[in-house]
Amino acid sequence: MGDPSIIKPELEQLLQDGTSEEIKSFLEGQHPYDIAEFISGLEANEIARIVLALGEPKGPDAFQKLETEQQVDALGVMPRRDGARLMEAMDPDERVDLIKALPEDEAERVLPLIAQAERNEIARLVSYDEGTVGSVMTTEYAAVKADLTVAETVSELRRIAPDKETIYYIYVIDESRKLVGFVSLKNLFISSSHARVKDAMKSDVKHVLATDDVEDVAKVVKDYDLLAVPVVDDGGRLVGIVTHDDAADVLEEEATEDMYHYGAAGEHLRYLPTNPFSLARQRVVWLILLAAVGFISGTIIHRYEAMITSVFALAIFIPVINASGGNAGTQASTVIIRGLATGEVSLTDSLKIFWKEIVVGLTIGVVVAVVGALRGYLLENSIGLAITVGLTMVSVVTFATVLGAVLPLLFKKLRLDPAVVSGPFIASVLDVVALLVYLEIARAVMRI
Amino acid sequence: MGDPSIIKPELEQLLQDGTSEEIKSFLEGQHPYDIAEFISGLEANEIARIVLALGEPKGPDAFQKLETEQQVDALGVMPRRDGARLMEAMDPDERVDLIKALPEDEAERVLPLIAQAERNEIARLVSYDEGTVGSVMTTEYAAVKADLTVAETVSELRRIAPDKETIYYIYVIDESRKLVGFVSLKNLFISSSHARVKDAMKSDVKHVLATDDVEDVAKVVKDYDLLAVPVVDDGGRLVGIVTHDDAADVLEEEATEDMYHYGAAGEHLRYLPTNPFSLARQRVVWLILLAAVGFISGTIIHRYEAMITSVFALAIFIPVINASGGNAGTQASTVIIRGLATGEVSLTDSLKIFWKEIVVGLTIGVVVAVVGALRGYLLENSIGLAITVGLTMVSVVTFATVLGAVLPLLFKKLRLDPAVVSGPFIASVLDVVALLVYLEIARAVMRI
Repeated sequence: MGDPSIIKPELEQLLQDGTSEEIKSFLEGQHPYDIAEFISGLEANEIARIVLALGEPKGPDAFQKLETEQQVDALGVMPRRDGARLMEAMDPDERVDLIKALPEDEAERVLPLIAQAERNEIARLVSYDEGTVGSVMTTEYAAVKADLTVAETVSELRRIAPDKETIYYIYVIDESRKLVGFVSLKNLFISSSHARVKDAMKSDVKHVLATDDVEDVAKVVKDYDLLAVPVVDDGGRLVGIVTHDDAADVLEEEATEDMYHYGAAGEHLRYLPTNPFSLARQRVVWLILLAAVGFISGTIIHRYEAMITSVFALAIFIPVINASGGNAGTQASTVIIRGLATGEVSLTDSLKIFWKEIVVGLTIGVVVAVVGALRGYLLENSIGLAITVGLTMVSVVTFATVLGAVLPLLFKKLRLDPAVVSGPFIASVLDVVALLVYLEIARAVMRI
Repeated sequence: MGDPSIIKPELEQLLQDGTSEEIKSFLEGQHPYDIAEFISGLEANEIARIVLALGEPKGPDAFQKLETEQQVDALGVMPRRDGARLMEAMDPDERVDLIKALPEDEAERVLPLIAQAERNEIARLVSYDEGTVGSVMTTEYAAVKADLTVAETVSELRRIAPDKETIYYIYVIDESRKLVGFVSLKNLFISSSHARVKDAMKSDVKHVLATDDVEDVAKVVKDYDLLAVPVVDDGGRLVGIVTHDDAADVLEEEATEDMYHYGAAGEHLRYLPTNPFSLARQRVVWLILLAAVGFISGTIIHRYEAMITSVFALAIFIPVINASGGNAGTQASTVIIRGLATGEVSLTDSLKIFWKEIVVGLTIGVVVAVVGALRGYLLENSIGLAITVGLTMVSVVTFATVLGAVLPLLFKKLRLDPAVVSGPFIASVLDVVALLVYLEIARAVMRI
């Protein structure tokens, strides 16, 4: 990739006084991903001009690497025929994302200009719900019949290669397009040219349904080190493939959403192009909910006013007890939420996790309790306070650890997103519990 | 994949009374990933028996999908010659991970039995530091000379296919193994058979150094939708490739480490096989550090004892003020840490982020402050308390938001891991700040 700090100014200069030919030859050596990076900061009409100047295949390739909103804007300022041509050249999965994002009147203007074959494809793909395999699959796969020879298959692959996203995985179908087998190009290469595909292929093919959850499928592609996984409809007919790069994008977005939920930061919006008030709206809802839980803690302190004012040292330990509980809970939930996301742990391990976290919680609880009790004794020279703080910390930290581990499992069991058990949420709930436990232990131990 | 609840018991039965042939034919139809799942819970000697019974290539393929510790254990109970044979058949990148994990005496016993070619390869790969590209790359790539014809290249690929991890990307080298070009098998297919490789190839190849950071390289593979990226040494000589599946593993592990750091949960250890005391040790260090910060908050409360006991209502709002600051800081740092990890934002956006977060912080600060002030007024019917709580919340939340966004950028600038700015860490630091701000505002507004 070229140095953006050199390329961007030159490109802007060319946009002012250069011809389309000059723009094209300036960018021609660049990867579509880099071109998208260079032009993503430009105005819609500049983006449109560059994409059209580049021609096929680089123009559409760079165009579909842009964010969908930018594609919509650039398409809006293009001559309609050029826009339709551009969309014909896009990958089917990227194209359908764009069409879903187009304003209705604009879609109605541009769609009739797109060739019939692509239009049929769009109609098929657009029907799949977000979050399903159908919404990310591509239809540009290589498929052959089982009775072709290896040599015939290879020359068929040569013929169709320009139009396919990958020709390295070849899917074998019968007369009714039912998926009956799979062979990699590597295995074709190893087979004798005269052999039939049906002898070289593997007939037990790992496949997924178009209506399956796309995150599960992305994990299959990753775990099995696949280049792509075939997608079939209810009738077992091959309708598309999900490629490794789309699977990687799905997994990255999933990890981002998990982290956002986990940080109680709402839903993921693209940071730079989103205005601050939309960002604020994502965060403020959780902040108010968590403040409400904070009010409950406040009410508890209110209730115990007499006790706290009579032994004010109790107030001094509220922050550290709250912090220890919240942090221990956050740690445990981090470990379990991420473990569930990567498959390192699963629901069937729940009992094992429960016992393990009791031991972990007790261990760290005892260590933290000793530190807390020591500090309690040194501060006030009071054995009662030391015992109160120590007992509270061991029980709060143990409870927090177990709760932090169990809640995500419970959410998963209920088919909810385990990452919604956010760190701030656990910490806030534990604040309430810790306060009650602390003040009740104090009442019992110190007889106040 | 077969149903584990059926396959596992049958497999255990076969281990007791079956022959190696029966074990082999029972598992033969399964994917290596699934076989590894089935056998990962078994004893080392059972794993060894199954892997050897499977033979090549399925035995080594399944074996290298196991965790490294399990590989070490199983290798320890195998006849040495079988172990050496197994290691010869492993992928070079997986093999070197295993060798690094072997106890020294065991490595010394098994290494001399491995064929010379593989031993040279091991010596080369083992020299790369953890975290570098060299430590994850494989040497089983396809490379050809530039003056071969396309037809010659295709028959060369047929010949070497069985030994290569991928033949879909072909790297072109000169006499001294310098990387001079690249062509995909798909492009070879599109080219005329009589053309020379040098005419079909792209000579400006995206490549990386063996000493580069593996996480950066994994991101390159993902962003550019590559099947693999070529790795060169200082002299530009081709020494290996990093494949898309290894890149995906690197990115997954990176996301896991980020999340662990972010949850203040220490370093990532594999959950199920690790004993609870090792897990506890990872977490307790942070817990004590954060408790120490909690003690500072306690000291502040101690200092302001007279003020708090004279207007006890102040104590009631400490939890909600602390929670709001901590949560707002956590939200902002979540957004920025994840943005830095995925490349959605970068250090060059720092100023933009700073201004944006001031607006975001003020917006959510005002909303939360209104809620807090209202509650303050309703609880005590005191305008002074309402103003104190409101002013505190708007300033603490704004400050927390900006700090939460800026700290990860600062850490990144200092070449530290931004995710070390964990949610619990930010929350604890903000507790201290919030308390001071709160009590000083109270002193000024309420004249106490």
